[in-house]
Amino acid sequence: MVDIKKLEELAKLVRYYILRMTTKAGSGHPTSSLSATDIMVALFFDKLRFDLKNPNSPANDRVIFSKGHASPLLYALYAAAGVLNEGELDSYRKFKSPLEGHPTPNFKYVDVATGSLGQGLSIGLGMALAGKSLDKLPYIVYVLIGDSEVSEGSVWEAIELTSYYKLDNLVGIIDVNRLGQSGQTMLGWDLETYQKRVESFGWKVQIVDGHDLGAIIKVLDSLSLSSDKPQMIIAKTVKGKGISFLENKEGWHGKALSEEQFKEAVKELGDVDKNVKGEVLKPVSSIKYQVSRKQKTKYKIQNTRYKLGEMVATRKAFGEALVKLGEINPDIVCLDAEVKNSTFADIFKEKYPERFFEMFIAEQNMIGVALGLSKRGRVPFASTFSAFLTRAFDQIRMASYSKPNIKFVGSHAGVSIGEDGPSQMGLEDMAMFRAILGSVIFCPGDAVACEKLVEIAAENEGIFYIRTNRPATPVIYKESEDFAIGGSKVVRASKDDKLTVVACGVTLIEVIKAADQLAKQGINVRVIDAYSIKPIDETTLMQAANETGSAMITVEDHYFEGGLGDTVLNVFANENKVKVYKLAVGKMPISGKPDELLDYEGISASAIVQKIKEILHLDNL
Amino acid sequence: MVDIKKLEELAKLVRYYILRMTTKAGSGHPTSSLSATDIMVALFFDKLRFDLKNPNSPANDRVIFSKGHASPLLYALYAAAGVLNEGELDSYRKFKSPLEGHPTPNFKYVDVATGSLGQGLSIGLGMALAGKSLDKLPYIVYVLIGDSEVSEGSVWEAIELTSYYKLDNLVGIIDVNRLGQSGQTMLGWDLETYQKRVESFGWKVQIVDGHDLGAIIKVLDSLSLSSDKPQMIIAKTVKGKGISFLENKEGWHGKALSEEQFKEAVKELGDVDKNVKGEVLKPVSSIKYQVSRKQKTKYKIQNTRYKLGEMVATRKAFGEALVKLGEINPDIVCLDAEVKNSTFADIFKEKYPERFFEMFIAEQNMIGVALGLSKRGRVPFASTFSAFLTRAFDQIRMASYSKPNIKFVGSHAGVSIGEDGPSQMGLEDMAMFRAILGSVIFCPGDAVACEKLVEIAAENEGIFYIRTNRPATPVIYKESEDFAIGGSKVVRASKDDKLTVVACGVTLIEVIKAADQLAKQGINVRVIDAYSIKPIDETTLMQAANETGSAMITVEDHYFEGGLGDTVLNVFANENKVKVYKLAVGKMPISGKPDELLDYEGISASAIVQKIKEILHLDNL
Repeated sequence: MVDIKKLEELAKLVRYYILRMTTKAGSGHPTSSLSATDIMVALFFDKLRFDLKNPNSPANDRVIFSKGHASPLLYALYAAAGVLNEGELDSYRKFKSPLEGHPTPNFKYVDVATGSLGQGLSIGLGMALAGKSLDKLPYIVYVLIGDSEVSEGSVWEAIELTSYYKLDNLVGIIDVNRLGQSGQTMLGWDLETYQKRVESFGWKVQIVDGHDLGAIIKVLDSLSLSSDKPQMIIAKTVKGKGISFLENKEGWHGKALSEEQFKEAVKELGDVDKNVKGEVLKPVSSIKYQVSRKQKTKYKIQNTRYKLGEMVATRKAFGEALVKLGEINPDIVCLDAEVKNSTFADIFKEKYPERFFEMFIAEQNMIGVALGLSKRGRVPFASTFSAFLTRAFDQIRMASYSKPNIKFVGSHAGVSIGEDGPSQMGLEDMAMFRAILGSVIFCPGDAVACEKLVEIAAENEGIFYIRTNRPATPVIYKESEDFAIGGSKVVRASKDDKLTVVACGVTLIEVIKAADQLAKQGINVRVIDAYSIKPIDETTLMQAANETGSAMITVEDHYFEGGLGDTVLNVFANENKVKVYKLAVGKMPISGKPDELLDYEGISASAIVQKIKEILHLDNL
Repeated sequence: MVDIKKLEELAKLVRYYILRMTTKAGSGHPTSSLSATDIMVALFFDKLRFDLKNPNSPANDRVIFSKGHASPLLYALYAAAGVLNEGELDSYRKFKSPLEGHPTPNFKYVDVATGSLGQGLSIGLGMALAGKSLDKLPYIVYVLIGDSEVSEGSVWEAIELTSYYKLDNLVGIIDVNRLGQSGQTMLGWDLETYQKRVESFGWKVQIVDGHDLGAIIKVLDSLSLSSDKPQMIIAKTVKGKGISFLENKEGWHGKALSEEQFKEAVKELGDVDKNVKGEVLKPVSSIKYQVSRKQKTKYKIQNTRYKLGEMVATRKAFGEALVKLGEINPDIVCLDAEVKNSTFADIFKEKYPERFFEMFIAEQNMIGVALGLSKRGRVPFASTFSAFLTRAFDQIRMASYSKPNIKFVGSHAGVSIGEDGPSQMGLEDMAMFRAILGSVIFCPGDAVACEKLVEIAAENEGIFYIRTNRPATPVIYKESEDFAIGGSKVVRASKDDKLTVVACGVTLIEVIKAADQLAKQGINVRVIDAYSIKPIDETTLMQAANETGSAMITVEDHYFEGGLGDTVLNVFANENKVKVYKLAVGKMPISGKPDELLDYEGISASAIVQKIKEILHLDNL
């Protein structure tokens, strides 16, 4: 039997905490928190099943505040549940407090960082997919969505895919308080239009008065988890609810009350019972994971039979490696943005259809889903064209604040894709991933390197980006070769190398051609395969600089800015000896044959030969 | 009176051209072109109003192939219209041909590059907005959309905003051929669900058999341009239509026919009349623009009365500058992603509401709209938090291939925003924009600099990015100071400078504090304001290196990768003299006071003082 009276007391206490912590912080979003207070109090203290002593229990329901600016409400709920005290609430927004301005996993009850709007539902979709399709666990994923953020396309990507996968274990709650940051939302309080739109995407939708606890309870109790339909609760709410001078007023977004205003507000709230404690229901079961995850270790995969000189595209080697890894680690899952026959993710799909999820052409959602899956213990490989990963830069950026374990694979890098033209060429992907905190970037030069780097990415936690190429290129490494994070390979070296050329991926092959041509003319150059772009192998680069003299050339099928060249320059930032010459893509890319384009952009074997001769003043040769 | 017979002949000819050019190229997307052939033939040769001799006439209707991979159809239509010959078609996908694998403005009948899916409708929305809301011209914008790309959230962002702005001059055509690249689309041939979804967003929707020319004509004739509703035509089509062995078959996406298969296909087509010529209707009127655009020149704005030492946030100076520019140039328009009171775009809205467009929280669509507006002669300033511009990286990347004129303004850059935490901090924006071909990047250090740089961005064509900060900082420049693309300012200099410190934006202020503290201790350092990040002022940096010795420090409120530091390193790549020390954001950002965070990340005045002493071995001081 629900105790509405107690829920009302809890709602009052939560409102008090919201106002108190924001006023003490001098900033924050009290009004956006007050609108969602009643519905979240009802959810937390009547419906939610969560073991507060064991936040990561696989049996727990999950809650995501997609509207991350309602963090005061989030923290207030846990305070009302008795796991935070007032003193801790007072640290809200303070330096090094786990109670940050927008939620991050620095607070132990938060799975993922939110605050860049429109991302929470995708993450919830990933968790719901793990629960229903993989772990077969009964937990429910609840996502609190702001009405303003519903305008983000990424929300509709998540909506369409959640119904496609029939995830009735995902429940969305839209807090329709009518007011955005700087004015009314596109739809205001037109709840019927919200309903029509979400229903048209195959969801079960219920509208509720977001401040009528009795009505909210009814809706929460009516949630059916066997409908095969995801469910959306559209709550009509009032921004600033509970404090007359805040209710439904413009100009109050993201503003804290002054001390005086706070006192006035508390007077309005009336007596607040600080001793009332919200009980959170325990999970129905406390199922333990029976998966490999616990004993994850370094694992060697059966080497492929790639023969030296054999022509194999690195993108193909990725697909073949992933299949082998999938055999060893059942936690590996694969996400595709409807290009699986180009990235070769389709090989994994054929072998492990139950661990392959087609995300269709919706890259933003794919990355959110990957994050959600990684938060439920999976090792997601999300692959598409490297160019199209730029579509999800904000999701990748936000993932980096969520202690993620995601492997990104971008194929068709650079102008070497040829005829399809610039729209399909990934020329800024290394710049993008270099600027992601804690990322590791691999750019394999052949199939063997790719296979081993995919293996390393799978067995190590964190954000890894693997850049693959479209054209088939010769296998240059033996199976016995070892690769490592921060490693490199010296593929050409002699006692009298005149300079060093550093490359990765498709341009490594061009550099080798160039070096071999020059060797025939008696000009030796050292060639380094910098397959690990981030971190880069500083030791080997330094040694080469010491041994081959003062000139170093970088060659990459990427724009001049932010890629291999910039990385190498950083190595020598404080060195007084090395001249670095960058070769990269600088002309407007066009359609053409791969070779024509490499030459056009000055990153082909012949362009490299020319540059080397120019630097060595051998133009006469 | 429509001549269906002739349209059929034209459709046959177009199909012949599609097959011919792709077979000759050995690649391309014939089947995706064949499905849309009948509806586009009807549009081009019965409905469209376009002066082929004057593609840029403001009176012309516009056509955007959002499904850019249907480029063979696009080129075939212009061939059927008699403005391309077979020889020119044969250059399809060849090196330096204007007929690229995916459309680009290198072909004079193409406004914007497409090929990264889901972007065309936003661009069309921008053009429709220019036509209806600004120019009051009767032209119609038609956008051909693939069914696969409808899964992109950006399409739904465009759909929701087109109806919000009641743009009945935008007509979308969805080519529902059921098959994506590697399998069936999410909805297959479920046309009713497409209809329900698009209708729920306020569009008028008609379903048509995409191969019944008579039915298509009826639908095109029924388009009403006074309904205040945008209109969507959902065409049921067959991929590969017209060639039995291609029709509705999987495995044919992006594949050209062999010579033999081509011969077989042509046999099926039957007699093709190569002399039939499609007539395109002339525009109803040939209205000329009566706007300033023609006589755009360098224009000085009335200087603001910023006083030296006055505390003004650069984001505020942006808003104030834009208002003044709006007075001089009526083509300047402003787009906001619902943060106008934070970016200060709201000042422009108050003064010029008719040239301000609220794009709500949908950054991808905002950038597409900006591109569309720029293609109709406007000078769009699109502003939001710098962090959230990452949401539109793919749109920005694609815009760079469309000869654009867009000004991006990103506020709240860096950890100096303080309490809101990492989700709101732009720490990778310079890396992103540096990797955009032909971009100019400004990072003003005070209000005066910001005002003048906004002015420079407005009067010069191309992609400009202006990075602004949240905190109010002191005005350091007099009104008389000049600024330029590729310029910089030496703000501290003496005869015995021990080294040089380079900074921009908020860290410039920190550096000045540091330099002044050190000067009191008799240690002089040179301080350079690198307000133009791209291009950077190489001359001044070189000179400083020559005059102040071998050490140079860069300080930026941005991640270590891809920003100011990497830019400066490039200047000295081939120099043997300079040691560059980078100070930037390297620790996981958290919430806190701006000063605490600058210090935490080692980019505050005291951190800079410490670093300088360390480099100069003055640790004892």
